[in-house]
Amino acid sequence: MVKEANDLTVSNQISTGDDASRTKGQLAPWRSPLSRALHRNRALAYARYGQLATVRADGRPANRTVVFRGFLDQPDGLDWNGLKFICDRRSAKVAELEANPWAELCWYFPKTREQFRLAGKVAIALDGQDTLGPVRQQTWEAISANAQTSFYWPEPGQPRAEQAAFERQEQPVEANQSSLPPDDFVLLVLQPLEVDHLELRGEPQNRWRYSQTEERAWQSLEVNP
Amino acid sequence: MVKEANDLTVSNQISTGDDASRTKGQLAPWRSPLSRALHRNRALAYARYGQLATVRADGRPANRTVVFRGFLDQPDGLDWNGLKFICDRRSAKVAELEANPWAELCWYFPKTREQFRLAGKVAIALDGQDTLGPVRQQTWEAISANAQTSFYWPEPGQPRAEQAAFERQEQPVEANQSSLPPDDFVLLVLQPLEVDHLELRGEPQNRWRYSQTEERAWQSLEVNP
Repeated sequence: MVKEANDLTVSNQISTGDDASRTKGQLAPWRSPLSRALHRNRALAYARYGQLATVRADGRPANRTVVFRGFLDQPDGLDWNGLKFICDRRSAKVAELEANPWAELCWYFPKTREQFRLAGKVAIALDGQDTLGPVRQQTWEAISANAQTSFYWPEPGQPRAEQAAFERQEQPVEANQSSLPPDDFVLLVLQPLEVDHLELRGEPQNRWRYSQTEERAWQSLEVNP
Repeated sequence: MVKEANDLTVSNQISTGDDASRTKGQLAPWRSPLSRALHRNRALAYARYGQLATVRADGRPANRTVVFRGFLDQPDGLDWNGLKFICDRRSAKVAELEANPWAELCWYFPKTREQFRLAGKVAIALDGQDTLGPVRQQTWEAISANAQTSFYWPEPGQPRAEQAAFERQEQPVEANQSSLPPDDFVLLVLQPLEVDHLELRGEPQNRWRYSQTEERAWQSLEVNP
């Protein structure tokens, strides 16, 4: 039997988002356990890696590792409790998300043995003209020179180019010196609408589901693991 | 620009499966690097965890962590180079895979810093009558008593039941003593048709794609990371 997310709204509601949770800048209730997991697993660099699933044009799923680049958190602007990722314009996921913006991030934290599943739509910032353009610029400036370099590499997924093609064409920029991101630099922002949090520790395991109502308030429900 | 898997068959072919690779019991060419990754990461229990993406009835992706239970490898029977997983009949992924058997497993190995993406169809063994019934039985016997117990828990995803409902109803079975799996015990076998292997180590990173041709031979191609 399949459980649909709408079931969450009908029964056993434990806590309901109040008016404050509809306010821009307010944290969703799953932000606290997720931030705690990030903190407790901070010794592991790969605890910031999650797997992002999308749907391809042929209706099959695609799934790849992405690096969490922080929350959107813009006090004066958009606030979706969005999660930031970056990718290459030429990678398949950009076209997939343009055609079908739904994604689910599965994020496992090894040290604390817990999983977050974050499902929602992904916003794509392709250039500086976008509403998210300033965030795209800030994100570009925040990544390492090595990470920046990869956006000047030959097209991902194409037959392997010669080594010389991977030598950076552009002048490297000194740390902390700002530069405009190249055209292939894309900012992705996942805006969760459903979050499933599973703790493997516990007898039995603990699990919660968070979902956003039509009024944009968050509801949470403790469910069977 | 999106690369489709069919592109693999047209150019820059490095190695082609020969007749032997069509024989039952023959290892696919990605089995060797995957086995090496499993071996080199064996100190990390969670290196056996991957993320399995499926597509829901509403066309959105779903993604969750699954535990690798070994390869199918049946010398005298089916040999798909299949990967075994188990799950609860009542979990959403069973219904999702019954409606759309395509899945992609994204598997990151932290110690060696490499990722395998394995895309293909998933076979579902629901009971002993299935072709995979004997494998389902063997897999049941191989898992721990704790793992067995979870199949007697209340329905996953439903509002949290009282603690008493998680007390096992059935008599526990001694280790090494065989028992019939409960109805809710499901064996999943992922049969990869496309495999993408990325090594983050390397300057630049290394990446290969393996795909199965219509003749069931495997082709491999080195591609840009």
